[in-house]
Amino acid sequence: MNFSSKIEKCSYSPIRKFYPLQVECEKKGTKIYHLNIGQPDIRTPQGFFDAIKRFDDEVVEYAPSPGIPQLIDAVRNYYSGIGVELSAGDIVVTTGGSEALSLTFSTVLDDGDELLVPEPLYSNYLTFANLSGGKVVPIPTDPENGYRYACRELLQSYVSPRSRAILITNPGNPTGVVLTRDEMRIIADFAKDNGLFLIVDEVYREFVYGGQKLSSFSEFDDIDENLVIIDSVSKRFSACGARVGALISRNGEFMANIMKLCQARLSVATLDQLGAAEMYKTDKSFFDEVRCEYKKRRDAVCEELAKIPGVRFDVPEGAFYLMATLPVDDTDAFQRWLFTDFELDGETVMFAPGAGFYSSPGKGASEIRIAYVRNCDYLRRSIRLLAAGIEAYNARKA
Amino acid sequence: MNFSSKIEKCSYSPIRKFYPLQVECEKKGTKIYHLNIGQPDIRTPQGFFDAIKRFDDEVVEYAPSPGIPQLIDAVRNYYSGIGVELSAGDIVVTTGGSEALSLTFSTVLDDGDELLVPEPLYSNYLTFANLSGGKVVPIPTDPENGYRYACRELLQSYVSPRSRAILITNPGNPTGVVLTRDEMRIIADFAKDNGLFLIVDEVYREFVYGGQKLSSFSEFDDIDENLVIIDSVSKRFSACGARVGALISRNGEFMANIMKLCQARLSVATLDQLGAAEMYKTDKSFFDEVRCEYKKRRDAVCEELAKIPGVRFDVPEGAFYLMATLPVDDTDAFQRWLFTDFELDGETVMFAPGAGFYSSPGKGASEIRIAYVRNCDYLRRSIRLLAAGIEAYNARKA
Repeated sequence: MNFSSKIEKCSYSPIRKFYPLQVECEKKGTKIYHLNIGQPDIRTPQGFFDAIKRFDDEVVEYAPSPGIPQLIDAVRNYYSGIGVELSAGDIVVTTGGSEALSLTFSTVLDDGDELLVPEPLYSNYLTFANLSGGKVVPIPTDPENGYRYACRELLQSYVSPRSRAILITNPGNPTGVVLTRDEMRIIADFAKDNGLFLIVDEVYREFVYGGQKLSSFSEFDDIDENLVIIDSVSKRFSACGARVGALISRNGEFMANIMKLCQARLSVATLDQLGAAEMYKTDKSFFDEVRCEYKKRRDAVCEELAKIPGVRFDVPEGAFYLMATLPVDDTDAFQRWLFTDFELDGETVMFAPGAGFYSSPGKGASEIRIAYVRNCDYLRRSIRLLAAGIEAYNARKA
Repeated sequence: MNFSSKIEKCSYSPIRKFYPLQVECEKKGTKIYHLNIGQPDIRTPQGFFDAIKRFDDEVVEYAPSPGIPQLIDAVRNYYSGIGVELSAGDIVVTTGGSEALSLTFSTVLDDGDELLVPEPLYSNYLTFANLSGGKVVPIPTDPENGYRYACRELLQSYVSPRSRAILITNPGNPTGVVLTRDEMRIIADFAKDNGLFLIVDEVYREFVYGGQKLSSFSEFDDIDENLVIIDSVSKRFSACGARVGALISRNGEFMANIMKLCQARLSVATLDQLGAAEMYKTDKSFFDEVRCEYKKRRDAVCEELAKIPGVRFDVPEGAFYLMATLPVDDTDAFQRWLFTDFELDGETVMFAPGAGFYSSPGKGASEIRIAYVRNCDYLRRSIRLLAAGIEAYNARKA
């Protein structure tokens, strides 16, 4: 039996593909420290649980396809709080940011249409783009320049007659880059002038460590036709397993097309939507505390990483990821070896190999993505295991 | 801004597209009786709520991409109970049967590849097929022959070099057709002999009213390479809003490809999976009671429908839908009129117009799909409203 060319182009997630090896390794009794996955240990707001436990309908019914009104209102209120007014029709609730992405790609990309994405990129973008038949055109960035990409000449040089959209993550995954206001304007103008959809994944909005005001491309009032925002409660409220996201656009025709797909997939889980709506009532101090905690974690990771000979990285400004270049040829092979041939006091470490965050073949082989989503002690121990692993791995080859 | 050709081919759901009109109609104070949507009023098993209320982790974390082990085990046990042995790797948990369908289509259909589907069909198949770039080739059936389609010559006559799969719903939505064992064998042989994937949507398995043993194509042991089962807890346990389904296949290469997509979309909602796992422990008497109730409902609908002059239909053998032909030219226009120009004692009725269940242009215009998922009194009143509506609509034109 043959499979579609689309699926043949897809790869396993660099964040999740080692799950079977992880299970094997744990069977040996080895404890694994996770730097691979953006699964925070921050407590999910109590409101989520309260709303779900309060549910007393006899039947768990389908929700409306656009989302339950309470949650749509909650999202509107949240945006209003950062200075952005949305109408209910500008928002549809999705099964995580993931579904928002795949709905968007299917709606704007035809076979061979080009989606510009600064690289390194969130690897699942590649899978969703492949499924739509679209083609990711990576915009290369330089680790030595902090992976910054908001340069009009750079962006413009990748535009072709097949270009349909530009997709960015701000704050950045996996790079932690946070765009300045001027950079945002450059990108908005670039999309507008070239008639491109501007798809902005803003799921890490709260996680900025330089004292910036929370921002969104939806603050600009001249790119309504272009702009599509990908949003989610997963990281904002540490509720990844709720699978509740949102797709936001003021382009009415775009939203009308999206609604065809929303109706076909019927609805998003009802109880999780109720829980999500309640989470949006969480006091703002929650974000301040969480931001402060992540900043400490970032600093702990950077401090430990800086001690490892041959490791290079920039201090990330936002999100909770960091790209580091290791003194290792192939971080994918190194990770496998960490499962099968390494342990220190019964412990090993897991990261996401960098190559999976590049669309360009051969790039990122020496890089890794680190998610700093656990407490500082856990992270320090993880990075020390990484240091010991690098030393042993390179000694082995010598 | 332009949109993809894929989305331009998609339509709104005939089941959900009237939602805005419905809201307007309700604002006028009119009560709407719903025959349009398969949203049962059967109580969701208590186990679902108990499992969710028992959850006491501090963080709602991502679940594993294939699904939580408890739920995969529960699905295995359930299949074992109907005589089918599955291994854990044969099952992935999905966000409803809907996601199982879209993952499958993306994995097996390339642009222009053909998917054979007996018609009338569940309309959302068309949307998911369009998104994958595949093309639905409808296999026509005849209301006068009870919409039966398991005829080798008929099926074979629609095979082309681009045929990749046949998709059937058994028991049938929207027709209520239940395949006999011999018919199942004909279809299995057809798929096998032609090297086609056989995608069987078995979400209505429990809903058979002729005393049949519960069956699944997975009972056949010679079509492992071909067979993909679409399954869901939505109808089985009246938990549509949980959005928990499953994709089942013993084709290892197919499942390996599916896993790429499962990793990209990360996971299915964690709490709903816990609830679903618990529901699978529901006593078998639940199904017997529910089946008995639906049979009564079917009989009530048929009894009332039979009283309406000019209405034709067959008594459905399974699922909880019925296709009826009305003495009306265009049931879509008729439905709009029922919202805007009709009421009887402040009440009106809503069905799903038939054309949306056909891929062939022009077909089904006089047909409607009725979902008999509410209590008998509700259904009798609904059909009487339909009768009054037909009479007034046709009198208006005269």
